Amino acid sequence: MAKFYGIGTGPGDSKLVTIEAAERLGKLAILYTPQPKKGGDSLAKKIVAPYLKDSLIIKERHFPMSYNKEEKKLAWEEIAAEIKTDINQGHDVGFITLGDPMIFSTYSYLLELLKGEVETVTLAGISSFANIASRIELPLVMEEESFAVIPVTAGSEKIEQALNLFDTIVLMKAASNLPLVKNLLKKTNLLDSAVVVSDVAMSTEKIIYGMQEINPEEKMSYFTTIIVKKRKEQ
Amino acid sequence: MAKFYGIGTGPGDSKLVTIEAAERLGKLAILYTPQPKKGGDSLAKKIVAPYLKDSLIIKERHFPMSYNKEEKKLAWEEIAAEIKTDINQGHDVGFITLGDPMIFSTYSYLLELLKGEVETVTLAGISSFANIASRIELPLVMEEESFAVIPVTAGSEKIEQALNLFDTIVLMKAASNLPLVKNLLKKTNLLDSAVVVSDVAMSTEKIIYGMQEINPEEKMSYFTTIIVKKRKEQ
Repeated sequence: MAKFYGIGTGPGDSKLVTIEAAERLGKLAILYTPQPKKGGDSLAKKIVAPYLKDSLIIKERHFPMSYNKEEKKLAWEEIAAEIKTDINQGHDVGFITLGDPMIFSTYSYLLELLKGEVETVTLAGISSFANIASRIELPLVMEEESFAVIPVTAGSEKIEQALNLFDTIVLMKAASNLPLVKNLLKKTNLLDSAVVVSDVAMSTEKIIYGMQEINPEEKMSYFTTIIVKKRKEQ
Repeated sequence: MAKFYGIGTGPGDSKLVTIEAAERLGKLAILYTPQPKKGGDSLAKKIVAPYLKDSLIIKERHFPMSYNKEEKKLAWEEIAAEIKTDINQGHDVGFITLGDPMIFSTYSYLLELLKGEVETVTLAGISSFANIASRIELPLVMEEESFAVIPVTAGSEKIEQALNLFDTIVLMKAASNLPLVKNLLKKTNLLDSAVVVSDVAMSTEKIIYGMQEINPEEKMSYFTTIIVKKRKEQ
């Protein structure tokens, strides 16, 4: 029976796709991908390109970034209905999403709409923050330690509590409010414990250790993550 | 120049290895793996078996689970010295670790000892909790949400604070103290929001929704993780 596959592509390099995902991508009949904003191919599509079969039908669609407003909800529902039709006609359908499908991915909206309607399978991918940690060889946690993953958009109170409570804090979408991040790290005395990483696994990759010298008004890449790792007192 | 590669194998299925890790495993001259406790092969070794070349030299060593005591430290230092010798003789050396090398892996000890001594490369792997989320199709976070990853051994105060603060909480090593977990989830009114997953991606996989019915005295697999996801109030 035909199924719907939600596939995590990892953070940016084709080699960071899992064997399972690469094999599955090669067997799909139809692949839904996000419509790139300015022509060309989306990053997710570039990542999976080496694994696709020639006869694959690619359907580029506009997937709104949220689900909250009525018109956006309608757009998701339309795509879900189209996917359902494809699957009911016997085609295995895939959807690709950057990083891991269960971590900050709009794939969740599609999954919610399709679950119970068709058979769904979700394939995990390397998340951007995990790849960053390996890339800069910064262990996130050991033994009794714990870590938190928070988007900077979660608000200052939540971020400050996490900075106080955890050994390691991963701040996602960090470029969206650098002044807030810098203030909170200053307040919690953690400016020196931050590593700022932009565009990991891409040619424009940039790594900065410590936030003392960073001008918070600086414009950084959308793909910027800050890992704050407290030093052990020993 | 020969290098040291720390390679995440993912949580248990050979297909969850990345293309990059599989290719690298196939090129290694020497691979260090943990000595299995009762003969046979370790899980990590079973996972990577399909990707190894015939001429590979496998060195099984005893890697202590911690680094805190003097004798354990000595064991790690001995292995690090041996690896250094192998690399200085021109051999690419690998070390495999379950899941992701930067998340609760003793690989960190080895990395600390080898960094600066030889060239090191760390390859990310799918972490067990990410794989669990995809397997049960439970999105960890969306939009402004945040999540925390805590070993149950972190202590009750920390776990309770995290349960209060975060949208999603991943409790690792959950089998080590089920009574504590059940008590805290009861106290925070989250018993129904928990999903208990043992041995994900293995033949003995087990998934239980809700903790009301679970007897906290039950003996569960070492590889048990509990994901607590709060319901949206809408």
